[in-house]
Amino acid sequence: MRLLTRFDLEFDISVPTPFVLMLRPRSGAQQWIAREEYRLTPHVPVFEFTDGYGNLCQRLLAPSGHFAIHTTAEVVTADRLDRAPGAPFVNIQSLPDDVLAYLLPSRYCEADRFGVMAAELTAAQRPGYDQVATIEAWLRASIRYLPGSSGQPLAATEVNTRQYGVCRDLAHLGIALCRSISIPARMVVGYLYGLEPMDMHAWFEAYVGGRWYTFDPTQPEIGGGYIAIGYGRDAADVAVYTQFGPAVFPLRQTVEVHLDTRHTG
Amino acid sequence: MRLLTRFDLEFDISVPTPFVLMLRPRSGAQQWIAREEYRLTPHVPVFEFTDGYGNLCQRLLAPSGHFAIHTTAEVVTADRLDRAPGAPFVNIQSLPDDVLAYLLPSRYCEADRFGVMAAELTAAQRPGYDQVATIEAWLRASIRYLPGSSGQPLAATEVNTRQYGVCRDLAHLGIALCRSISIPARMVVGYLYGLEPMDMHAWFEAYVGGRWYTFDPTQPEIGGGYIAIGYGRDAADVAVYTQFGPAVFPLRQTVEVHLDTRHTG
Amino acid sequence: MRLLTRFDLEFDISVPTPFVLMLRPRSGAQQWIAREEYRLTPHVPVFEFTDGYGNLCQRLLAPSGHFAIHTTAEVVTADRLDRAPGAPFVNIQSLPDDVLAYLLPSRYCEADRFGVMAAELTAAQRPGYDQVATIEAWLRASIRYLPGSSGQPLAATEVNTRQYGVCRDLAHLGIALCRSISIPARMVVGYLYGLEPMDMHAWFEAYVGGRWYTFDPTQPEIGGGYIAIGYGRDAADVAVYTQFGPAVFPLRQTVEVHLDTRHTG
Amino acid sequence: MRLLTRFDLEFDISVPTPFVLMLRPRSGAQQWIAREEYRLTPHVPVFEFTDGYGNLCQRLLAPSGHFAIHTTAEVVTADRLDRAPGAPFVNIQSLPDDVLAYLLPSRYCEADRFGVMAAELTAAQRPGYDQVATIEAWLRASIRYLPGSSGQPLAATEVNTRQYGVCRDLAHLGIALCRSISIPARMVVGYLYGLEPMDMHAWFEAYVGGRWYTFDPTQPEIGGGYIAIGYGRDAADVAVYTQFGPAVFPLRQTVEVHLDTRHTG
Repeated sequence: MRLLTRFDLEFDISVPTPFVLMLRPRSGAQQWIAREEYRLTPHVPVFEFTDGYGNLCQRLLAPSGHFAIHTTAEVVTADRLDRAPGAPFVNIQSLPDDVLAYLLPSRYCEADRFGVMAAELTAAQRPGYDQVATIEAWLRASIRYLPGSSGQPLAATEVNTRQYGVCRDLAHLGIALCRSISIPARMVVGYLYGLEPMDMHAWFEAYVGGRWYTFDPTQPEIGGGYIAIGYGRDAADVAVYTQFGPAVFPLRQTVEVHLDTRHTG
Repeated sequence: MRLLTRFDLEFDISVPTPFVLMLRPRSGAQQWIAREEYRLTPHVPVFEFTDGYGNLCQRLLAPSGHFAIHTTAEVVTADRLDRAPGAPFVNIQSLPDDVLAYLLPSRYCEADRFGVMAAELTAAQRPGYDQVATIEAWLRASIRYLPGSSGQPLAATEVNTRQYGVCRDLAHLGIALCRSISIPARMVVGYLYGLEPMDMHAWFEAYVGGRWYTFDPTQPEIGGGYIAIGYGRDAADVAVYTQFGPAVFPLRQTVEVHLDTRHTG
Repeated sequence: MRLLTRFDLEFDISVPTPFVLMLRPRSGAQQWIAREEYRLTPHVPVFEFTDGYGNLCQRLLAPSGHFAIHTTAEVVTADRLDRAPGAPFVNIQSLPDDVLAYLLPSRYCEADRFGVMAAELTAAQRPGYDQVATIEAWLRASIRYLPGSSGQPLAATEVNTRQYGVCRDLAHLGIALCRSISIPARMVVGYLYGLEPMDMHAWFEAYVGGRWYTFDPTQPEIGGGYIAIGYGRDAADVAVYTQFGPAVFPLRQTVEVHLDTRHTG
Repeated sequence: MRLLTRFDLEFDISVPTPFVLMLRPRSGAQQWIAREEYRLTPHVPVFEFTDGYGNLCQRLLAPSGHFAIHTTAEVVTADRLDRAPGAPFVNIQSLPDDVLAYLLPSRYCEADRFGVMAAELTAAQRPGYDQVATIEAWLRASIRYLPGSSGQPLAATEVNTRQYGVCRDLAHLGIALCRSISIPARMVVGYLYGLEPMDMHAWFEAYVGGRWYTFDPTQPEIGGGYIAIGYGRDAADVAVYTQFGPAVFPLRQTVEVHLDTRHTG
């Protein structure tokens, strides 16, 4: 399908503030950025770099006063993401080098604390995709998805105690559970067409059967309409904006995802 | 200044043909991509990756039949590029690690053959920026810039014998001369506002005084209006498209660069 | 000074077990590996790769039975590490791209929880090196260094509550405090000549005044004799060995660091 | 087999001279560095970095006077390298991203000049390994291997005209021929046990059947005893030492490779 996205941020800045933004989706196997717009008002110098996960990041110093970021994109993405019941667990020694880091515990995914729980949850499953699908189903059934219920990211252990959370929280717990049974898992932030209420979204991917597969415990099932903006170990790596110095909260934040009906191809 | 670019390519493909494209300019210190469009007709799966020089490259398999690539961009770029007479030569041992590779000879820049010539040309100059400026001035005076005069890239030794060439040829000779006196130099391809006749352009950068500076022997002097698409050691690294298998020539290739008069900011 | 190190590990393995080892120190600005030995008994195939932090890592599948790792090195290292009172805070917008990641919270360094505490601790200091030195002095005075007091890594918040810990624990708290005032900080594991009791050691580095400086709250003052093996965000990234599957504990672990008296140079 | 290598270089330096050395073999799938020694006399500060091909490089400023580099290693390597007749050509679109660069022409491998010749040579072969084996056999039969016959590296076109060359020259021609039929190929420098006369050696690898395979037209057949030190596009990338400024020639250069008979394992 072809989607039109919009993400706008407006700030009222009191002192010049350094930002790192992650708002430029990359074209990859699963999505193609056919058109993209990225404007800053006022326009300031920006340095773009690729971080350790392959994300395009933009560094800038936001000046005092009103500062607005306006992005839109037109993206060709899959109508329906791949699923692969039965896809096997990949032996550690066969994992690509750059996938290994996604086995380690991280700030919000304390994989080192979930070994027993994950083993019990997935005991009846074939190692691999089916274990992750079981974790995703357990999250759907056991952790209430409550958009707007938290501001700061929560760690997987906190989410497991609290039993509810935002998309990011559910992803953190899912990632921690996967890693604790030696399945590499990573966080994705981006857009989801049809998300209710509309907002930036977060989900996770697990590496089984020789590639990454998408899992999203906030949705009844994996359909399509996903647009990835950033990948990382957890929310610490993939904030769409990171700001340094005195906290600055956006005056306004707008997220829109529409179906592009102008194209027939 | 704010520029609007357009680059279109059309092919008539007889057998499915792998391409690597380099048509997505990166935002960096000197330019900001405010809007970008990149369409393929028909649309085919594309994989984007970052090459060893930091360029965004797109891999695809072009299907048989008519195949068109359409790109446009709106870019904020410097009105006038920095110049730095007197900027000093950087000692080899002080160069950043990733700059060292730009001292080595490469396919079209046989730096190992120009030591004596470059030493003679630049003997009267302070080591650094002034040497490169002298090389640029010598190219301007001695190698005739003849757009359209060659199809395949020529190596610096060939250009030096022939005494004329396209922008790419002059850049190759400039790069070879710089490297032969231990000044790192690299090739840039992109757009230049006001280029006559309009086409894709190529120029070079040299690393002196702790950063890269732009040099362009095809122009009477360095102004502004440059938009970089790709960086590399020479033309072998920064082809805007590389195609594998039986040669396919574009039916049509269109390059346009306009001043954006809609914005006042 | 010239040091001789030895690190031996012996395991009794019940089922073939994947390991990632980080036991090959790199030569860098501060140390030169003049001789190195790295043996596995029995010898098994090993794949070496460079991780995202520049560390050399070795992947292997340890076979069932007795498995021993034997490493020695002869290293030329500084007699006394640099100190730089007054070295200034580096503005976020001036940090190298690859240093930015060391500002983010990580598994054991919850920088997002220490903003107020770090600001209070360092309020009287000039921003930069002096703030870090104050954090180091506070750790020395307030968190008891108790070698052997913990097995699993503890997070900075846990260490702060507990008020004692091993070298790794003190480093985690120091790193979290630095990052919370926007000073990049990273974990280092390696050897320290004269450490009592002798063992693998951990300390931290902070990025101020345009480079990394070493801090070690477990020692009365920073001298010399440090040999780095690995760098990372925290202990999750720089385990000298990471093992997957059922837990395997070493039968024996030997660490030795001696002064090399054979050389006079 | 287990091999002991020695490579020593001695210089008489008139003015302080920057060097980049590539003398630290990496442990990889095919070889394990069990012991290594790397000494400089006099000892000077050295910075080690990983270049764009994964090689460990050492940068230093050699002081005036006598300067010696002494390296030894004990390496476990294959008794017999893999061969794979029939291993298929890998479609361009299926090549790993980081292999693509080995399809491009480079300084000494003008792949763009050998399309017709390579197509004719390999016309009767199945695409892939068998084409490369045919190129290797043709080199063996047609280009005389004359150790010591050239000082400076020659480009593939020059080697093809001259019809004789050193190991490096034969490798350059083999690489250019492979790339011209869209088979990625790269240069390797290192040691070969039993080489006559003993010296540093060079050979090439081609990517077919999903991995790199070794080819060596200087030897009657591929056996074992190869130890790789560096990989690159051609000799420009993998000089064991690159020196800048006025040319300095080694007073003495010693290469030795022995079978290690002390170990029975």
